Amino acid sequence: MSILVVGSVAFDSLETPSGKRERVLGGAATHFALAASFFTKVRVVGVVGEDFLPEHEAVLTSKGVDTTGIEHVVGKSFHWTGSYVQNLAEAQTLATDLNVFADFEPKIPASYLDSEYLFLANIDPVLQSKVRAAMPNVKLVAGDTMNYWIAAHRDNLLKVLEELDVLIINDKEVLMLSGETNWVRGAKKVLELGPKSLVVKYAEHGSASFFSERSFGDNSSAGIFRAPATPQEEVVDPTGAGDSFAGGFYGYIASQGKLTPEVFRTAMFYGCVMGSLSVEQFGTERLQRTTREEIEARFQQLKQISHL
Amino acid sequence: MSILVVGSVAFDSLETPSGKRERVLGGAATHFALAASFFTKVRVVGVVGEDFLPEHEAVLTSKGVDTTGIEHVVGKSFHWTGSYVQNLAEAQTLATDLNVFADFEPKIPASYLDSEYLFLANIDPVLQSKVRAAMPNVKLVAGDTMNYWIAAHRDNLLKVLEELDVLIINDKEVLMLSGETNWVRGAKKVLELGPKSLVVKYAEHGSASFFSERSFGDNSSAGIFRAPATPQEEVVDPTGAGDSFAGGFYGYIASQGKLTPEVFRTAMFYGCVMGSLSVEQFGTERLQRTTREEIEARFQQLKQISHL
Repeated sequence: MSILVVGSVAFDSLETPSGKRERVLGGAATHFALAASFFTKVRVVGVVGEDFLPEHEAVLTSKGVDTTGIEHVVGKSFHWTGSYVQNLAEAQTLATDLNVFADFEPKIPASYLDSEYLFLANIDPVLQSKVRAAMPNVKLVAGDTMNYWIAAHRDNLLKVLEELDVLIINDKEVLMLSGETNWVRGAKKVLELGPKSLVVKYAEHGSASFFSERSFGDNSSAGIFRAPATPQEEVVDPTGAGDSFAGGFYGYIASQGKLTPEVFRTAMFYGCVMGSLSVEQFGTERLQRTTREEIEARFQQLKQISHL
Repeated sequence: MSILVVGSVAFDSLETPSGKRERVLGGAATHFALAASFFTKVRVVGVVGEDFLPEHEAVLTSKGVDTTGIEHVVGKSFHWTGSYVQNLAEAQTLATDLNVFADFEPKIPASYLDSEYLFLANIDPVLQSKVRAAMPNVKLVAGDTMNYWIAAHRDNLLKVLEELDVLIINDKEVLMLSGETNWVRGAKKVLELGPKSLVVKYAEHGSASFFSERSFGDNSSAGIFRAPATPQEEVVDPTGAGDSFAGGFYGYIASQGKLTPEVFRTAMFYGCVMGSLSVEQFGTERLQRTTREEIEARFQQLKQISHL
């Protein structure tokens, strides 16, 4: 089953306590696609500039990711500069050069139209809605967002939320979106805004999912699931951890072809696995050299450290 | 199997987003003893003043807790005043009136000397060492501490750590004690300081245990276990949550009479259960009206939300 992901393909210049890197391949769609590629076929819709070279595209295509929908235009690719030197848990943005991404108008190749799973990475909710509308036959829609859209584009975002089967955001975004100070109450309020289910990411503390009666389309009861994170002795670069989580999570769901509570729970574990791998090196380095065997071993490890 | 706990028996005046309470029964030994009382026989060593009335003692004795070792002296009991209005995750101390606790010299009743489990709650490490030395035949010793002793009484504390089978502290204390910025590396360093095993509490994010080769006395391999917390829609009063966790954890271990990896892991879950119950009302109110059936139900719930 194919996933269509729409989002940023970018370069990141990063500084963390482990070191510094200039212009490594990044972007939400990139991290998501790489992580999901270990589970299922992934197709990317994005835009890049002239600095996006064949070697960068090969990072994706070598994993079987379809890059037909990455539009090449004149100019420079989106470039984010950030530092985690003060706080590994929260990036300090030093520069956001949107470049060609500022005028991004997602164009979906005809060959993508039969995708059954849609992932709307963190972009302008107006664009998320457009892509959603252009893919009326998908089986499942998941999406991400961030503080900027929650604060300044709330009405547009609310329209997207109504369309989502799964919203995947972090704990701070849950509180911001709901106006609550407690994330359990916050999650309930977020579900009332439209998404059929919610996955909350807590960085090194793992993730939680909140189900509504509509989550599995069979009047299942609402509930909660809590997945741990792999304890990491060193976080080299947290950039893209959330997108890698989403890629592992959604990639596993797409590989199963159906959404049951069991598939959802297992997908949370695979999300944690991909997120934990991604932070072990800068940018996409770690996911590029990951194997499916390594992913399975870490999945078993995660189960072992959390199950009685 | 009996647990001897030494620590504070106190009154707390509290303000939280849920309300305000004056002089409710509190103290580390009180919360620990109440939580552990659902699993095993508990004996308390502490000191109180003339304001500690028969009705306060009855809170403990009605649960079968042995209070022979609570010394009554002239003066007022330890009284802590704190606020969680700004931040439920961290208390703001408004006043610490040590009163009779300032001159606390633990006295162990003869009837306590056959206790097989010892818990050294958060008190001056010099006193912890004295109590440890007075109980040479205990099977297992667990203990807690806090930032004050880590910062200002480190040498005395290190002597206590060498004697511990289990150290139970929170994530910030792990970083402070180890000088690390990552809690996995920090935990490894803490284990090198002496304790055979370490339990790290993360408040609403549950807990983790770190085992050394010496944890189970049988050259088991070192490792990690991660237990979730029950998602709470409302935290009324976090005071004593950590002590209630420790009481549930250690009470369960004492009830089993042996320390295996399986017992340790299960004990982590019971710790989470007692911690999560304790925060639902002010002071000891919630633990006072808890039943063993309720504890079992919450244990099953915790397993259900965290196991695939």
